[in-house]
Amino acid sequence: MTAGEQDRESLVEARIEKRRRAVPRFTDERVTMAHGAGGKASRKLVEGVFVPAFMNPALSTLGDAAVLDIGGALVAVTTDAFVVTPIRFPGGSIGELAVNGTVNDLAVSGARPLAVTASFILEEGVPADVVRAEAEAMAAAATAAGVVIVAGDTKVVERGKADQMYITTTGVGVLDERSRVSSSSVRPDDRVIVSGTIGDHGVAIMLARGGLDIEADVRSDTAPLWPAVDAVLAACGPSVRWMRDATRGGVATVLNELALAAEVSVMLDEHAVPIQPAVGAACELLGIDPLYVANEGRFVAIVAADAVEAALSAMRAVEVSAGAAVVGEVGADPPGRVLGRTAFGGHRMIDMLVGDPLPRIC
Amino acid sequence: MTAGEQDRESLVEARIEKRRRAVPRFTDERVTMAHGAGGKASRKLVEGVFVPAFMNPALSTLGDAAVLDIGGALVAVTTDAFVVTPIRFPGGSIGELAVNGTVNDLAVSGARPLAVTASFILEEGVPADVVRAEAEAMAAAATAAGVVIVAGDTKVVERGKADQMYITTTGVGVLDERSRVSSSSVRPDDRVIVSGTIGDHGVAIMLARGGLDIEADVRSDTAPLWPAVDAVLAACGPSVRWMRDATRGGVATVLNELALAAEVSVMLDEHAVPIQPAVGAACELLGIDPLYVANEGRFVAIVAADAVEAALSAMRAVEVSAGAAVVGEVGADPPGRVLGRTAFGGHRMIDMLVGDPLPRIC
Repeated sequence: MTAGEQDRESLVEARIEKRRRAVPRFTDERVTMAHGAGGKASRKLVEGVFVPAFMNPALSTLGDAAVLDIGGALVAVTTDAFVVTPIRFPGGSIGELAVNGTVNDLAVSGARPLAVTASFILEEGVPADVVRAEAEAMAAAATAAGVVIVAGDTKVVERGKADQMYITTTGVGVLDERSRVSSSSVRPDDRVIVSGTIGDHGVAIMLARGGLDIEADVRSDTAPLWPAVDAVLAACGPSVRWMRDATRGGVATVLNELALAAEVSVMLDEHAVPIQPAVGAACELLGIDPLYVANEGRFVAIVAADAVEAALSAMRAVEVSAGAAVVGEVGADPPGRVLGRTAFGGHRMIDMLVGDPLPRIC
Repeated sequence: MTAGEQDRESLVEARIEKRRRAVPRFTDERVTMAHGAGGKASRKLVEGVFVPAFMNPALSTLGDAAVLDIGGALVAVTTDAFVVTPIRFPGGSIGELAVNGTVNDLAVSGARPLAVTASFILEEGVPADVVRAEAEAMAAAATAAGVVIVAGDTKVVERGKADQMYITTTGVGVLDERSRVSSSSVRPDDRVIVSGTIGDHGVAIMLARGGLDIEADVRSDTAPLWPAVDAVLAACGPSVRWMRDATRGGVATVLNELALAAEVSVMLDEHAVPIQPAVGAACELLGIDPLYVANEGRFVAIVAADAVEAALSAMRAVEVSAGAAVVGEVGADPPGRVLGRTAFGGHRMIDMLVGDPLPRIC
């Protein structure tokens, strides 16, 4: 190692150390919509309020699912609240989302989903048929995902104290023995795969809300991801380093979370990211970057360079990830940063989502 | 068996068969507050809408927790949404309730609580200190209950679309090998124990809402029940037939659920039910029956007659159930019914809760 290399290494280490020592503080006086958007503000709320209060080894990884050793079985657990509006939209509904969102958090944690619990907060006056339709949507989604809905609860609040219904689901799964996914497994030169076109869900919701003068047939991508995860684990096992479903905050936010957690950089080939023309056009008209738009049936996988072709073939053979593409690679420097490589060879910094361009997207 | 006895037996069987065949139907057009009250209307919603949609063996027991066999480990799972108003009240707060309510559903199912997930729906504009206080209340309750909070989620909805905050918790536990609790284990001549004074939580909430001209120092009984369950299982093992925490709908509702599920009758000695004088007086002024008022740290246990003294001593030795008392016994007839024996030797029918006298109590 030359003196210059040593200097550079010390610099990088100092930077990592600083980031590690930084005590996240939550200084906002009130909760705003941005705290629910999944980006920087959400992270501050979680790291500044909930993590210090709940501190324990299982929670502190901030992964999508916690893993508990129960009598020798490695049980994965995850929870999500769903407050999407409108509750029905092209390609899905809140009930379907509530099942898929939660089983997907298990899947990308390398856990086979087994069961889901469902808790409903209903607004007084919501039509019984609306509740019935969502119960049926959840049942169908559970069947499609191969899970059972094993426990539930229902509360009712006065008219105007909710918005038709909110659903919280919790998923229980079993850690798959082929999986070694962890941000600490990620290494420079690993490749970045996205499992299909991005932004479909968020744009479908925006269009369903109406009021925009855009005519486009965009459907939510909501779908269970376990078949794709199962296929890539079967093909590549421990060469699958890390996975995350790109929900709130989109692909840009999950890559930033990875870069921070693994203390690596990520270089994204922006022109390689699959985007449906209608979604791209809608984003351009709305002035939003599709990299930050929520997906509900897409995930990002980090795979060892020598396994990337096997991973791609395995994923493309499964319907939900038929559109999988390699979109970038992991680097060493600058740690904690995501950079975009434009079609013309330039670079731009891709930061975490700030604010909330698309509230109540899931 | 005499001819008269045979006739009577056929009659009982016919009645049970009718009840069994009755397909629960949900014919209401809209959801009302009563559907969230834990009584008859809640049961109709659950049995008429959710159970038919989600039908599976784990769900169909309608117990407080589902049990999953994961790699040989018997994992108990339960979920509950909390929408109590006000969120802080004498003796507790929504955060503490959200932990205790869920670990108690595990405990009375004979499962040792291990972990809890927490999902927050926050109203835009809620002060950060209010969120912080509930995170701390949950952490303290988790420590007291011996569980870890392992996963969470936060969503934010617009001002006026929630009421400060709603919390859904899901509990994961492991079935205790000493436990054989099940409604099918309940037999005529078994005894009914309540673990302490009833109605404290519901009355504390009513008084905290103000507007009533009642001065009384009543505190919620919210507390983790596992220490009491652990003690009674250690003392009596399989002689503990069935347990249920008496939350929404109160002791009357859980006894009705038991009577229906086990196809037995329950005779309650009303004068033996422990009630704090202030709670009794408040209920009288409010015109509500304390048997229907929610508790958050009390449970009903059905115990074999020959184990009842051992059960009582074991429970009384634990702080949370120091006030345990025998309040009645199980009978054969009329199946599915709860009867109250008054101090003067009379009887009255104690039905399930109808309507919602105390909305958003938990």
